[in-house]
This record gives sequence, C-alpha cells and structure tokens, in this order.
Amino acid sequence: MVEKSLKDQLIQIGAIRFGNFTLASGKKSDVYIDIKMAMTHPEILKSIAVSVMDQKLEWDVVAGVAVGGVPLAVASSLESGRPYVIIRKEQKTHGLSSLIIGDVKGKRVVMIEDVTTSGGSALFGVDQIRQAGGVITDIISVVDRGEGAEETLSNAGIKLTSLVSKSDLVQK
Amino acid sequence: MVEKSLKDQLIQIGAIRFGNFTLASGKKSDVYIDIKMAMTHPEILKSIAVSVMDQKLEWDVVAGVAVGGVPLAVASSLESGRPYVIIRKEQKTHGLSSLIIGDVKGKRVVMIEDVTTSGGSALFGVDQIRQAGGVITDIISVVDRGEGAEETLSNAGIKLTSLVSKSDLVQK
Repeated sequence: MVEKSLKDQLIQIGAIRFGNFTLASGKKSDVYIDIKMAMTHPEILKSIAVSVMDQKLEWDVVAGVAVGGVPLAVASSLESGRPYVIIRKEQKTHGLSSLIIGDVKGKRVVMIEDVTTSGGSALFGVDQIRQAGGVITDIISVVDRGEGAEETLSNAGIKLTSLVSKSDLVQK
Repeated sequence: MVEKSLKDQLIQIGAIRFGNFTLASGKKSDVYIDIKMAMTHPEILKSIAVSVMDQKLEWDVVAGVAVGGVPLAVASSLESGRPYVIIRKEQKTHGLSSLIIGDVKGKRVVMIEDVTTSGGSALFGVDQIRQAGGVITDIISVVDRGEGAEETLSNAGIKLTSLVSKSDLVQK
C-alpha cells in the first residue's frame, strides 16, 4: 500500500483548494485552506498526529489554543502517550483560574496550530505557556500560509515547522 | 492484568475526591469532581473513549461542547473511526458561520459531556445540533452529579447515560 501524503489527503478532502478566492479579510488568494473541517475526520486527524510524531521533537506536553488547536493537541497526546494542555482564549467569568487547562510548569511544551498566518494566535499561546512556567521553543503548524508567522515567532525564540510546506501550496 | 475501572482511575488521579468541599457556587458538597484536568492524561482520556464505545449506542457523529467536551469528542472519534463535531459556545465576531464545526445534517449524533449538573450546557448543545439538522437522543456524561440534568434532558427527549454512576460518588 502506498501511503498518501498529508498534503494529498488535505487536497482530496477539499481542505486545500486551488483557484481564485477572496478571503474573509477581503484579500485575494489563489489557495483556499480550511483545516478545521477536514480534521473532524479521524483519518485526517490521525495522519496529522503521526506527522507531528515524525518531526522527532523533544517534548513532554502538547498544547493547543482553543478551539481549533484542541483536536490537534488531543490527537497528538493520544498518539504519543503524553499529556496535552488547552489554552483558553478568554478568561471565564469567575476569573481566578488560569487560561491553561492542564500542567506545563517546568515541562517542555510543543504547540500545534491548524493554520498560521501572522502568528498572532500562536504568539498568544506562547506567552500563556511561558507565564505558566512552561518551556517552549517549537510550534508545529499543519499549514503555514507564509504571511509572517515564521518571523514573528522566530523573534520570540520559536522555531515554526509546517507539516505542509509552502511549495505544496502552489498548484503544479 | 486486572483492568482498573474508570471510577478507580479517576479517584486515583484525584479527579474524584471525598471530603468536605465548598463548590464555586458556594454550595457544600462531600464529593469534589474535576474531570477537565484528569482527561489531559491520555490514559484517562482513552479509558473514557473506550467506555463511550462500551455503551453500544448507535451514532454517526460524536459532538462536544467547547471547550471541555472537545477532548472527549475527539478521543471518541479516534476510537470509533467516526467524525466529531465541535459546538462553539459563542459566535465568532465575523458572525455568519454556524456555531458547529463539522457536519451533523441528517446524522445520528451522540454528545459527550465531562460533568453534567443542571444540564444547561448539554441542552444548549442539543439545541444547536437540532437546529443544524442533526438527530440526537443520547448524551453520555463522564460524571452526572445528579442535580437535575437527567430530568431536564429527559424533557427534551434525551436519555442521559453517566459513565460513573451516582452510587460511585458515595465514599464506601
């Protein structure tokens, strides 16, 4: 059996499409990317988790920013046998609890994002993890759009690895 | 090897504790329940997913209300090979998208909750699923506190199954 690459799976399921698109921001794009819907299919989610493990990074805990990053973190946790943490975007009303569900203190943390664009959401997660005493130097993105996240994160001491490479986002 | 029950695993990890507690609501309780932290450990999460499958319910899609229900839905999806959906609590600012990530239309949906108390959060999820055209008649809760959820949900045509039974919540 020849295994299909993650990129080919994402194209087949319609998570990556080529054509002429207008993004929510109003910007034109020749590639459409929507991983959130695709990863509700367990075979896609499992492929992503296997690709995360293939990166051979050293980590104790895997983090995902709510809500999009959570399935990726959970699947990577189950694949690796190591715990996950969830980073909430907003404080709950009663207010005293941390934005992080789970334990990162003194742990090596890797964060998983579905799509990175400017890197703002990823950077928010990094800040939360560091404030809670976690050590983070790596983020894995399923697809990096190549629109600034790599540099933004590099300035924060983070190496961004994209599971689907930029050259895969050009129709051949 | 004798397998430990889910209840025993939850007690061992401190997710269920017996004593004298004051809940966030100010109410006194002789049992403390916090599944959110416990389920960040993949062995607990996997046990819950296996228990979900053991219920032998018929469903096409498993749903979780953000953020607490999402890891449970994702783990049950990976265990079963069937898709999950996420029910967001709030509309994103740009507003036109559904509160549901994933596809429930015409599908038999089971929803998983970590803890049910009054059943309000579960009922919110049921409404969203039905509005989106999904068919839901069952909810599985890891722990039902026995404080009204069963009746509330029954009135909405939903059978609530608790993986840890009420009798397990009394110290022996």
